[in-house]
Amino acid sequence: MNFPIDLEKLINYYKKLPGIGERSAERLAIATIEFNNEEIEEFSKTLINAKNNLTRCTICGHITDNEICDICNSENRNQNLICVVEDYKSVFSFEKSGKFKGTYHVLNGLISPIDDIGPEDINLASLENRVSKLKEVELILALKPTIEGEATTLYIKKILESKNVTISRLSYGIPIGADIDYLDNVTLEKALEDRKKISE
Amino acid sequence: MNFPIDLEKLINYYKKLPGIGERSAERLAIATIEFNNEEIEEFSKTLINAKNNLTRCTICGHITDNEICDICNSENRNQNLICVVEDYKSVFSFEKSGKFKGTYHVLNGLISPIDDIGPEDINLASLENRVSKLKEVELILALKPTIEGEATTLYIKKILESKNVTISRLSYGIPIGADIDYLDNVTLEKALEDRKKISE
Repeated sequence: MNFPIDLEKLINYYKKLPGIGERSAERLAIATIEFNNEEIEEFSKTLINAKNNLTRCTICGHITDNEICDICNSENRNQNLICVVEDYKSVFSFEKSGKFKGTYHVLNGLISPIDDIGPEDINLASLENRVSKLKEVELILALKPTIEGEATTLYIKKILESKNVTISRLSYGIPIGADIDYLDNVTLEKALEDRKKISE
Repeated sequence: MNFPIDLEKLINYYKKLPGIGERSAERLAIATIEFNNEEIEEFSKTLINAKNNLTRCTICGHITDNEICDICNSENRNQNLICVVEDYKSVFSFEKSGKFKGTYHVLNGLISPIDDIGPEDINLASLENRVSKLKEVELILALKPTIEGEATTLYIKKILESKNVTISRLSYGIPIGADIDYLDNVTLEKALEDRKKISE
């Protein structure tokens, strides 16, 4: 199957995106060349702008088009409640749920000795700095339950527990709607460990 | 949920593509800004190139980056067997099946009195011209079975049947793998009409 070369190239870019296979990429590319000239030019410029104009918030490390992100800048957010996440995608997930009214700290990675990623390679110094400027602060560690997530959680606990900080982590357990019969062993084990008393 | 403005714009472009909803568009946009700078620039250029460099084959009307498309240019394709299709997407579908060794003629539309689209508005003059230059030619009309498809089929039959042309259309019938119980009435009716003798 030979597509004209420029169409083929466009298909190949779409194929790099998550969840886009051969067929979908073809469909997207063909739909794209049916955009009008103005739309195509804007789309093309937007790609460059999205890459070039997005930077990191100097406070929390989330992506933003300003020096300080909207969340850190907001008067309605509790600046003393900081949810620590691995990357900015987690911020989008929390924001979408709309329930969290604190702020974030984006580590931009996790400690991973096996990959030679130490505490100095991720956005931790700024977290320490940020915490020491606040009087009373609660940190919620929302890191994934893997070796790297646990290592990072332990490290943060170690460097910050001497300060005036309450540290918690997200609870592990059964996802809402899941069938217990199909859960993996580790999740079941964690759900047992993290069990919550419901009677006095 | 507030995304940075340039990311939001990118999400909106992805949402214009077929089959891409809110969530997928977000996922695609976030994956896109994780491309490296070089990839983003190439992607951006490819969009413009795919739009600007693609033109119509002067013989058949298929999209191509040359004056004449690879199919019309090929010595391995039967130039006297012409499959008439509505748009270039149909060409891609046939080419993917890999079974058709003739050439195509892309009408770039169908006759539709209700939308004020007459024979002169679609790529028909060039088909007439093309056919009259060939000695013996078979036309396969591969147009969709709608009022517009039928109208176009009848018109082509009318203008070309006086010439030395064999005209056929694709068979209608049950798609392979389909369950007869779930077929619509019109398809069933067509499958009955187009039934094929299997005994002598």
